[in-house]
Amino acid sequence: MNRVLSFEEAKGQDRFMLGGKGFGLVEMTSIGLPVPPGFTITTDVCKEYYRGGGNVPSGLLHEVRQKVEEVERRTGRKFGGTPNPLLFSVRSGAPYSMPGMMDTILNLGLSDEAADWLAGHSENPRFVYDSFRRLVQMFGKVAIGVDGELFERELEERRRRAGVKMDIELSAEELREVAQKFKEIIRTRSGREFPQDPHVQLEMSIEAVLQSWNNPRAKEYRRYYGIGDDLGTAVNVQTMVFGNLGDNSGSGVGFTRNPSTGERDLFGEYLPDSQGGDVVSGARTPVSLSVVEPAIHQRLLELTRTLESHFRDMQDFEFTVEKGTLYLLQTRNGKRTPQAAVKIAVDMVEEGLVRPEEAVSRVEPEMLDALLHRRLDPGPADKPLAKGLNASPGAASGKVVFDTDEAAEIGKSEKIILVRPETTPEDIKGMIAAQGVLTVRGGMTSHAAVVARGMGKPAIVGCGDVEISQDGMSFVTRGGEKVAEGDVITIDGTSGNVFRGEVKTIEPEPSPEFWRLLQIADRFKRLGVWANADTPEAAAKALGFGAEGIGLCRTERMFNAPDRLPIVREMIMSKDSEERKRHLYRLSPFQLSDFTGIFSEMRERPVVIRLLDLPLHEFLPPVDELLLEIEKMKEDGASADEIQATEAVLARVRQLSEHNPMLGHRGCRLAVTYPEIYEMQTKAILRAAVEVSRKTGKDPTVKIMIPLVAHVGEFGFLRNVIEKAAAEVLHELGTKMPFQVGTMIETPRAALTAGDIALQSDFFSFGTNDLTQTTFGFSRDDVEAKFIPKYIETGILDRSPFDSVDVAGVGKLVKMAVEQGRKTNPRLEVGICGEHGGDPRSIALFHEAGLDYVSCSSFRVPIARLAAAQAAVAKSSVTTA
Amino acid sequence: MNRVLSFEEAKGQDRFMLGGKGFGLVEMTSIGLPVPPGFTITTDVCKEYYRGGGNVPSGLLHEVRQKVEEVERRTGRKFGGTPNPLLFSVRSGAPYSMPGMMDTILNLGLSDEAADWLAGHSENPRFVYDSFRRLVQMFGKVAIGVDGELFERELEERRRRAGVKMDIELSAEELREVAQKFKEIIRTRSGREFPQDPHVQLEMSIEAVLQSWNNPRAKEYRRYYGIGDDLGTAVNVQTMVFGNLGDNSGSGVGFTRNPSTGERDLFGEYLPDSQGGDVVSGARTPVSLSVVEPAIHQRLLELTRTLESHFRDMQDFEFTVEKGTLYLLQTRNGKRTPQAAVKIAVDMVEEGLVRPEEAVSRVEPEMLDALLHRRLDPGPADKPLAKGLNASPGAASGKVVFDTDEAAEIGKSEKIILVRPETTPEDIKGMIAAQGVLTVRGGMTSHAAVVARGMGKPAIVGCGDVEISQDGMSFVTRGGEKVAEGDVITIDGTSGNVFRGEVKTIEPEPSPEFWRLLQIADRFKRLGVWANADTPEAAAKALGFGAEGIGLCRTERMFNAPDRLPIVREMIMSKDSEERKRHLYRLSPFQLSDFTGIFSEMRERPVVIRLLDLPLHEFLPPVDELLLEIEKMKEDGASADEIQATEAVLARVRQLSEHNPMLGHRGCRLAVTYPEIYEMQTKAILRAAVEVSRKTGKDPTVKIMIPLVAHVGEFGFLRNVIEKAAAEVLHELGTKMPFQVGTMIETPRAALTAGDIALQSDFFSFGTNDLTQTTFGFSRDDVEAKFIPKYIETGILDRSPFDSVDVAGVGKLVKMAVEQGRKTNPRLEVGICGEHGGDPRSIALFHEAGLDYVSCSSFRVPIARLAAAQAAVAKSSVTTA
Repeated sequence: MNRVLSFEEAKGQDRFMLGGKGFGLVEMTSIGLPVPPGFTITTDVCKEYYRGGGNVPSGLLHEVRQKVEEVERRTGRKFGGTPNPLLFSVRSGAPYSMPGMMDTILNLGLSDEAADWLAGHSENPRFVYDSFRRLVQMFGKVAIGVDGELFERELEERRRRAGVKMDIELSAEELREVAQKFKEIIRTRSGREFPQDPHVQLEMSIEAVLQSWNNPRAKEYRRYYGIGDDLGTAVNVQTMVFGNLGDNSGSGVGFTRNPSTGERDLFGEYLPDSQGGDVVSGARTPVSLSVVEPAIHQRLLELTRTLESHFRDMQDFEFTVEKGTLYLLQTRNGKRTPQAAVKIAVDMVEEGLVRPEEAVSRVEPEMLDALLHRRLDPGPADKPLAKGLNASPGAASGKVVFDTDEAAEIGKSEKIILVRPETTPEDIKGMIAAQGVLTVRGGMTSHAAVVARGMGKPAIVGCGDVEISQDGMSFVTRGGEKVAEGDVITIDGTSGNVFRGEVKTIEPEPSPEFWRLLQIADRFKRLGVWANADTPEAAAKALGFGAEGIGLCRTERMFNAPDRLPIVREMIMSKDSEERKRHLYRLSPFQLSDFTGIFSEMRERPVVIRLLDLPLHEFLPPVDELLLEIEKMKEDGASADEIQATEAVLARVRQLSEHNPMLGHRGCRLAVTYPEIYEMQTKAILRAAVEVSRKTGKDPTVKIMIPLVAHVGEFGFLRNVIEKAAAEVLHELGTKMPFQVGTMIETPRAALTAGDIALQSDFFSFGTNDLTQTTFGFSRDDVEAKFIPKYIETGILDRSPFDSVDVAGVGKLVKMAVEQGRKTNPRLEVGICGEHGGDPRSIALFHEAGLDYVSCSSFRVPIARLAAAQAAVAKSSVTTA
Repeated sequence: MNRVLSFEEAKGQDRFMLGGKGFGLVEMTSIGLPVPPGFTITTDVCKEYYRGGGNVPSGLLHEVRQKVEEVERRTGRKFGGTPNPLLFSVRSGAPYSMPGMMDTILNLGLSDEAADWLAGHSENPRFVYDSFRRLVQMFGKVAIGVDGELFERELEERRRRAGVKMDIELSAEELREVAQKFKEIIRTRSGREFPQDPHVQLEMSIEAVLQSWNNPRAKEYRRYYGIGDDLGTAVNVQTMVFGNLGDNSGSGVGFTRNPSTGERDLFGEYLPDSQGGDVVSGARTPVSLSVVEPAIHQRLLELTRTLESHFRDMQDFEFTVEKGTLYLLQTRNGKRTPQAAVKIAVDMVEEGLVRPEEAVSRVEPEMLDALLHRRLDPGPADKPLAKGLNASPGAASGKVVFDTDEAAEIGKSEKIILVRPETTPEDIKGMIAAQGVLTVRGGMTSHAAVVARGMGKPAIVGCGDVEISQDGMSFVTRGGEKVAEGDVITIDGTSGNVFRGEVKTIEPEPSPEFWRLLQIADRFKRLGVWANADTPEAAAKALGFGAEGIGLCRTERMFNAPDRLPIVREMIMSKDSEERKRHLYRLSPFQLSDFTGIFSEMRERPVVIRLLDLPLHEFLPPVDELLLEIEKMKEDGASADEIQATEAVLARVRQLSEHNPMLGHRGCRLAVTYPEIYEMQTKAILRAAVEVSRKTGKDPTVKIMIPLVAHVGEFGFLRNVIEKAAAEVLHELGTKMPFQVGTMIETPRAALTAGDIALQSDFFSFGTNDLTQTTFGFSRDDVEAKFIPKYIETGILDRSPFDSVDVAGVGKLVKMAVEQGRKTNPRLEVGICGEHGGDPRSIALFHEAGLDYVSCSSFRVPIARLAAAQAAVAKSSVTTA
């Protein structure tokens, strides 16, 4: 068993054994970089410690003492001894970074005697006693368990008495007294003495770090980030070096490339005569590494090249210069902005540092999102007024307008934000005119959310922090701030934050490296990436982002336009089939031109058109509005006829309204009862395909999709309706046009009986939004605000199943359906067109389940391309490993 | 291959080969009963006919001719020849009865010559020519394909000219002329001659019958009843005998036992000097078999005993007496009333005719339902006014009352029917006071439906045929009939029919045989049969019907009582946890007394208590009512404070209302957000259990059930809440009380992840109502009226998945969950407590899936006991076969 290894001995051990910090130190040591000597107590020790019921494994301290002696021999100094005492730091270091969760103790080895010796020989005795009082304080708190508050109170009292504000303003003597006082606190509170023996200090510190692995906040952190409790932490014991020993000393942090832009230049800051934390504390102003003295600059440039060629990624490192000698104290892969991540990945391929498939895996797909939307750059004065659901990313500013008609008018000349309780198709004209939308109610699939995403406009929905006044002329936030019509606000659809006034924004400008990365990704991905698009404009945008087809064209969304809406409403309210057909055929020319536009745009690429899945309730006037209208008509003395007409509308709305519209008379169910709807649509689709084919000489690839199938009988019935209508229209046009008929898999029953359905179906497309709703029994509009946050807080769920597909439940159904469907129909094409189609975690599952493609909104196509490549690379590396 | 078999030769062949009619004839022949000689063309011929593209198999007609010759030899008469011509009937006969769907031709062998000879030698020449014209007519229509309407028109013209009303009033000569005219119609319409050759008649008739297997109505009938298209029909060719040859002739139908009561006596009717159909035509009045002449009576009694001892079931037979000789023309198992079915099954066991397990399988379990509910006995004048969903069986009459408070008042002294748009818990007092309930809206799980079933009161819901007037003082039916408050109506919850006035009803009185049959059933069933019961009274009733435990005690139903409802409403409307706890603890004493009552009733039998699954929307005042109330308050000049208070209620109701309450914040989700609810309930349950234990010295068997789990994390979280509350209360009481904690499986995800959940759960109980809703994505309240009927009509579904569990989808999930659950927890107890628990088809599936018990409403316990026994008997006979 590996227990205590010097940085030299540990060479070749992995991150799980050494922890992240230890791994960096060992690697740097192995390539000859200047690392202060020390050793790592491996994670195995931590595991053994807990297996043994929290006892330091026997013999460990003996090994530690041997390693200390090794360091003493190498440095020629004595641990805690004079002259020039050797001091150690003890730091935790788990395999995955858990910043600030576990304990650290510095300056181990200082004692009354050593401190006095050092103070006497130092140019800065105040620093020596400050270091000593810090040791006593940290040790007292961490290793002995005295309440830290007591030390703080003592310090406060001292500052008050000395009339200063900062600890460092206290004199050397005062600090010396503080240290003595701290020892007294330890004695009276714990009945124990602060140990003067450096070995006792070290051993107690090591055990304290081991214990800190299981402190409550560390456990909580691991649970939240899904880090295993059994990984354990390593403990790093390292010689202290000091950057505060005069002008030829100092400390700094560096990045091997610019973490903001990705440019290949040394980036970082340095503070002469300082210790580690001082650089970032803000008390003194550090200098840029680019203007640091030439010798150090040159040394750092060399280090940068060595670090990158070894670690093959951009590094974030810490260093200290002690009397002219440079030491590296830490290195790790550097955090970076999305732009930088993309540029670094692509550049490193070109520099030959990483293989293309590695570069693909280096960029978090979600990061690309930030590069595609106008985004906020809030300053310190910009505090959010309210927060809602981040329904459609991007940022926008404008004057608040509450009324849709007004919005349509004002929006012609001014930037506006439409603020509504929630939106309906009536609000489309207002949304078109607005820069962005804010609604009080509604969830991530509400009308406002879906339409705004389709338009690529920022939207915040379900913003319960905001209450619209009775007169509809202002809103008040939970914090009591009032915003009146005409006031300017800024909404950030990426974060869900609402700000007062105009907040600075940054334009999206995907770099050449952005497109280059996607080209590289395309070489590895197996999944096709298609887009959800309902209009020719959306189709063009999708192509621009590299979509290979349209996986979902929602015909009900085509009805949202103001010139179509009244007809749709009349169609829904129709009392019989004749009336319904009349209204349907008025919609037919609109559909024809929509489809013609989309087919023209997409050429021979596949286009999956989903037949009508009308959310009736979105197209009907609300019952309470009608009720109040009737009351008002009565008050205003309207005629009996007028009142009766409105009452008739009310009666029909009541008849059509449903207890649970999500589980109601919609999708293919509506089409089984009113087959004329799909007849009209099929004819319009094929008419458009023929028109485009005649114009361009190329046949569109037409795929007609039936929504919400739960039973193979529904599919068979409607496939007949479609094929009959197709035969009629093609006969009339005197031509042929190949087309496929497939189904959404969006009910558990469809997935459970996929084998039967596949016998009759040319393709499947998973609708994982609906499938998630029914598999869990969660209505997204109801649960996202009401209890999902509580579920995440209590750890019942890691994340909302609407954000990433639920593997154990929904994922199981997806895999079953693919397997059973392909068994009965080996030529079955399988895709997914729910919102999960653009989610990287979900894409990994879809890759594994063997889907042919994912389809997502245009703006997520780049993300999906990258995620699909990562899934393929990860899978193949697993397979070949 | 078996093709053409005389009734003697066919002995030992089965019903699938011979068809039902042929099987009866062959069996009767084989035991020496007097059957006119003939032969059966087997179903194999029909199959061969269709396999050959609709051609009579070669050689068949030769075999038929040989059989005809055999009959000629046996009877000493010649087919169609004189003197005394031998005539045949040709009848279809499929393995399963398809009454009236296929064709029959009688009197084959008659020709002009034979008819004239017979007329000359008969006492009734008119009958002879009538028979001849019938042959020509049937043959023309069925075998030649002439439009039957033409013959009917000719007859009508003849009657008009002769000035008579019925065909039989025409003279012999007139009928002879009709036959000639019919031949002419055939000639002019088809260009073919009516064949005088009897063999040609026979051969064409046989082919016509074979063809009729695939006529549209026969196909439709098979599709509807699920009869395979490939079974084919047999064709029975039999010597005609005549009961209309004078006073010592006649025909009749008989039952070997009374089909109405099951009494063991000869039952039936006889009409002297008549042919088969005359008995039931009503033109002349037949006599009861009990007063028929002694010789025939004696002969029939003997036949009865022979038939029963051979067929071992009650027989329905047809006979003809030709000049003193009795012939049997048909026998089959007789249809019977539910009472008779039970009595006959039990009696036959006692008579040693059938084994007990056979008797159990002889009674359709659904039949028992009729024996447990007061039922209607409508006369011919009672036409239904309207029809709704048959939500709760039984019949009731009373005065119509529309207002709940009035109902509670009037109901004290008079019989009333409560008529409401739909009911809410506010209406409970009205429902208690009423004989039955009629609602305009709502489905089979609506408040009205569930509460009425729980009370055992008749209810019709979702009766859209009825519209309540604006003033709420009358309703008008779709047929335009007006019913005012105070008018008497009768509702039949078994059929869904509403009648004007009081319709005669019959009291339920389960016979001793009813209880005896259930005792027999209990010897065979493996499944336990438990009941759903929410009150001590319901528990007592369930025990009376033989329930072995309570599988579902719905605690939310306990809150329906008028003294609790206001507290529940306040609890729901609570703004914070403190307020909620206050109201909850006001409910605690009620719960305590409920549980104490139920445990006392059930002694040591298991009681599964489902913690709160509150349908919030049922307990909240509707938004539109509040809106109108506020408008009215304003009009009436109410104070600002009053108006504000109501507006606050409205705001809270809006906040709590959900888009899809079925998929919303309910069940265990509410408990995760407000754990105090389950804490209170757990404490009340255990307090009650301890109280009962101390009083009786026996521990109740307590099973606490968590509703609507979708994720094992929900279960784990709430199990902790429950165990903590239990520990607290038991510590306080200073005692111990064993209890189990289990879960409903009512979301697809729970079923898909059952293995994980079973690790932590003591038992599962399937909630197949909810599971069906989410598996299909069907909201029961919305789909049952809107499209399920259309689905059944188009053949997409055989029946509503809410009536019988869907095998391919929901059944698959049930089986998966049982299998995976038992794999991780072999001691897991598994039951079902949805409404399917009382459905015989579903019970068969649950038996097969290996469940431990089914739980259903009290009134269905007997049905479930019988169905469970049948499932076990069927399974074991399959296993041993």
